[in-house]
Amino acid sequence: MYRIDLNSDLGESFGRYTLGLDDQIIPLVSSANVACGQHAGDPMVMRDTVRMAADAGIAIGAHPGYPDLQGFGRRDMHLSPDEAYSYMLYQIGALQAFCAAAGIPLRHVKPHGQLYNHAAIDPELAAALAQAVRDVDDRLVLVGLANSALVDEGRKIGLVTAEEFFTDRNYTDEGKLVSRNDPAALIRNEEEAIERVKNAIRDGAILSVNGKLIDLHADTICVHGDSPTALAFVRRTREALEEDGIAIKPVGAR
Amino acid sequence: MYRIDLNSDLGESFGRYTLGLDDQIIPLVSSANVACGQHAGDPMVMRDTVRMAADAGIAIGAHPGYPDLQGFGRRDMHLSPDEAYSYMLYQIGALQAFCAAAGIPLRHVKPHGQLYNHAAIDPELAAALAQAVRDVDDRLVLVGLANSALVDEGRKIGLVTAEEFFTDRNYTDEGKLVSRNDPAALIRNEEEAIERVKNAIRDGAILSVNGKLIDLHADTICVHGDSPTALAFVRRTREALEEDGIAIKPVGAR
Amino acid sequence: MYRIDLNSDLGESFGRYTLGLDDQIIPLVSSANVACGQHAGDPMVMRDTVRMAADAGIAIGAHPGYPDLQGFGRRDMHLSPDEAYSYMLYQIGALQAFCAAAGIPLRHVKPHGQLYNHAAIDPELAAALAQAVRDVDDRLVLVGLANSALVDEGRKIGLVTAEEFFTDRNYTDEGKLVSRNDPAALIRNEEEAIERVKNAIRDGAILSVNGKLIDLHADTICVHGDSPTALAFVRRTREALEEDGIAIKPVGAR
Amino acid sequence: MYRIDLNSDLGESFGRYTLGLDDQIIPLVSSANVACGQHAGDPMVMRDTVRMAADAGIAIGAHPGYPDLQGFGRRDMHLSPDEAYSYMLYQIGALQAFCAAAGIPLRHVKPHGQLYNHAAIDPELAAALAQAVRDVDDRLVLVGLANSALVDEGRKIGLVTAEEFFTDRNYTDEGKLVSRNDPAALIRNEEEAIERVKNAIRDGAILSVNGKLIDLHADTICVHGDSPTALAFVRRTREALEEDGIAIKPVGAR
Repeated sequence: MYRIDLNSDLGESFGRYTLGLDDQIIPLVSSANVACGQHAGDPMVMRDTVRMAADAGIAIGAHPGYPDLQGFGRRDMHLSPDEAYSYMLYQIGALQAFCAAAGIPLRHVKPHGQLYNHAAIDPELAAALAQAVRDVDDRLVLVGLANSALVDEGRKIGLVTAEEFFTDRNYTDEGKLVSRNDPAALIRNEEEAIERVKNAIRDGAILSVNGKLIDLHADTICVHGDSPTALAFVRRTREALEEDGIAIKPVGAR
Repeated sequence: MYRIDLNSDLGESFGRYTLGLDDQIIPLVSSANVACGQHAGDPMVMRDTVRMAADAGIAIGAHPGYPDLQGFGRRDMHLSPDEAYSYMLYQIGALQAFCAAAGIPLRHVKPHGQLYNHAAIDPELAAALAQAVRDVDDRLVLVGLANSALVDEGRKIGLVTAEEFFTDRNYTDEGKLVSRNDPAALIRNEEEAIERVKNAIRDGAILSVNGKLIDLHADTICVHGDSPTALAFVRRTREALEEDGIAIKPVGAR
Repeated sequence: MYRIDLNSDLGESFGRYTLGLDDQIIPLVSSANVACGQHAGDPMVMRDTVRMAADAGIAIGAHPGYPDLQGFGRRDMHLSPDEAYSYMLYQIGALQAFCAAAGIPLRHVKPHGQLYNHAAIDPELAAALAQAVRDVDDRLVLVGLANSALVDEGRKIGLVTAEEFFTDRNYTDEGKLVSRNDPAALIRNEEEAIERVKNAIRDGAILSVNGKLIDLHADTICVHGDSPTALAFVRRTREALEEDGIAIKPVGAR
Repeated sequence: MYRIDLNSDLGESFGRYTLGLDDQIIPLVSSANVACGQHAGDPMVMRDTVRMAADAGIAIGAHPGYPDLQGFGRRDMHLSPDEAYSYMLYQIGALQAFCAAAGIPLRHVKPHGQLYNHAAIDPELAAALAQAVRDVDDRLVLVGLANSALVDEGRKIGLVTAEEFFTDRNYTDEGKLVSRNDPAALIRNEEEAIERVKNAIRDGAILSVNGKLIDLHADTICVHGDSPTALAFVRRTREALEEDGIAIKPVGAR
């Protein structure tokens, strides 16, 4: 039976500042990536988010990012591999304590923002992040962009990895994301987007931006709950997948 | 056989800023309390400190503090019990990941600065801190001021606790620290200070500032390595204890 | 002719986080208190907020707070008078640069949150804040709670001060705010609230919670723009005042 | 008469953390670049540093850096020109308030660390920094690397600029610093270093790393006070210059 994980970046509120409709997206997804207090989130938000996700029975992962709250982890920062490794341990560990307190295991780790983007193309950084995940707990699933350096480096050291697919993005013939600067970057038709997901899940292949059939594995899809429109699209995607007999399950779950 | 733990607050450097002669104090103590990045320390410092302590074979504990780097956790802050609980989980978990990466267990938790001071006298805050420790791992030893609310609350929920003794401070008839505002707060004679430690270890009792014999348990003593003078005093203390047949061992160790 | 200033706390967004409907409240008020990056706000938000307020022709003031972004400046922190003085200089100066770049003067300073509350009752802290304001520019207007230590200390050193009136709060016979813990703290009837403002403006007196006529000066009223409901109340208040011939003008303006 | 400015980066302590022998270097230099609380420094340190420098009668400048305390402003960060502009205003303004409180003017601005390095080679970033300086006060002197984009962009908009010379570095035929990765980057002989300074001051020219005579203007030299050895070198440099009749004066002073 075919299966897919729907993941969402949660726990991005901070202090007085609220971001995302976390309580509304949680029932629609199978995995939560919880911000760890460096690019977003704070200890109280982490506690509440982990409890909500635990109550809903979905898988919980860490979503570590650059230590840049003002830039939300989306600004480029140069960290040495050693620094990146240390920031990863710090953030994964912090979240793990909230999981322990909630009586559930931490399941996966997915880097955030520019850390995710850099780790997709920089093998040295990717290796540092993968090593950090393994050093905390070698049963953790490492989530990265499909066909990325992060996934490669994770596999090399024996981690279970999950490849993330972007439903609304076009891919090059080499299986990389078409740059956002290119007008062809985005797929704006929702039905088309959903069809592509199904192909990726069932065939492990999609059509590239040039119409070429390329290998593209989809273990998990990132969905967003920051607006009613976004939530509605998640609902439609989920229904379409389930109608086709595709199970919605966390990565690594049996 | 009599025994005592010598603990020191380590890993208080931050980025470009170095604090403490950590490499020189580590061989002299049995336990390290490692700062967790909120009042002092950063992920790189935490990694290095945990590795150094692990190599030396001493016990490693978390040293969580108020989230106030500029004030070094020494300024009063009002946190609700819920907030304090969440900050504790965050910091203990972060350090735990570095311990996991170093292949050693986290052994104890000792709050820092004003968080320590408030938890000594505020039962509600103390209960929140104790609960956080238990929720992360109920085998962790909770270290608090002798005769404090923190130790009481830890015991109530079944934690192993360790009472910290200050060698250079006078105590009231009630077993509390004489306030620093009182000229009699400090014991300036080193020989006298060392004698008091021995009494506390062997008899569980010392003379109060008024000359009354009071119960005072000493499981662990905090020593400082921030100057050559301080290091010399630690060496003398350690020698004096060992000459008397008192073993220097981490709290909870067999 | 009677007059009053309507002030609002603006520029409280931070990085990816948006707070307040600043563009909608600006046309309704005569003064903006702009957060200075320590409890809320960041340099980009400060630049945008100052430009918006400058374009609208309203008076701009600094809204310095405790250095506690995670607590939004609403948690108690103990700062020594020297520390409070230094944080004030820092924040006022930072905002002043954005005013200089926009070609307009900084007009006033109103402390935020718990810094405001403490300065209302702690003369030593109040004196430190007032001194900071004078040391930056002795033409700045110091805004504080009516009948507060902050206003007193500002006057003592020759600053122009403005007393802030809370339309939705009851006052004791001594002219202090009834504590929020008291069920009688809030005035929930909007018409009553508006009548009280008018009395304060015209008579410099209102009825206390016990029905006693007490002196209460109102130079400025704090209004909120964080929701459509709040904005509607500001509109009604403004209209009611203008219908009564009360001019809406910044403090200190001619 | 020939002249030169000796500048030093001061006020880099933070909270409990002390850095630099500021009180010992101040009597040896003519200008202080004071950290502004984003990469180093805090409001209390800024107040103390400005007071010390004001008492010594040396010129005070702002030393703004990337908002990265953990990396001391030495890690690469990508800021858009708009962001860089805003961070500059914020930091310059903050320091200006401490100067106002000390009754002295702010004289110059010199970016710190990687912000300085990037602004030396990136005209768009350099233009944003120069504009920020002018928008705060167009009489401020902009200090940048000799032959840099920052100096060029400052001149274009009419700022007085000062070119900084590095006594211990070799220069390429194009007047750029030889990269630190090149073994020839550093001049290790102190006498040679001092001779080069004199040449740069008197002739506006030095020998490049290839022995070619190149134009190199030296308005100011950065000296360091972080160790007794460093202080001794500053003393020798200062004496050597004064013996040759070269006056030590702040940039822009008459």
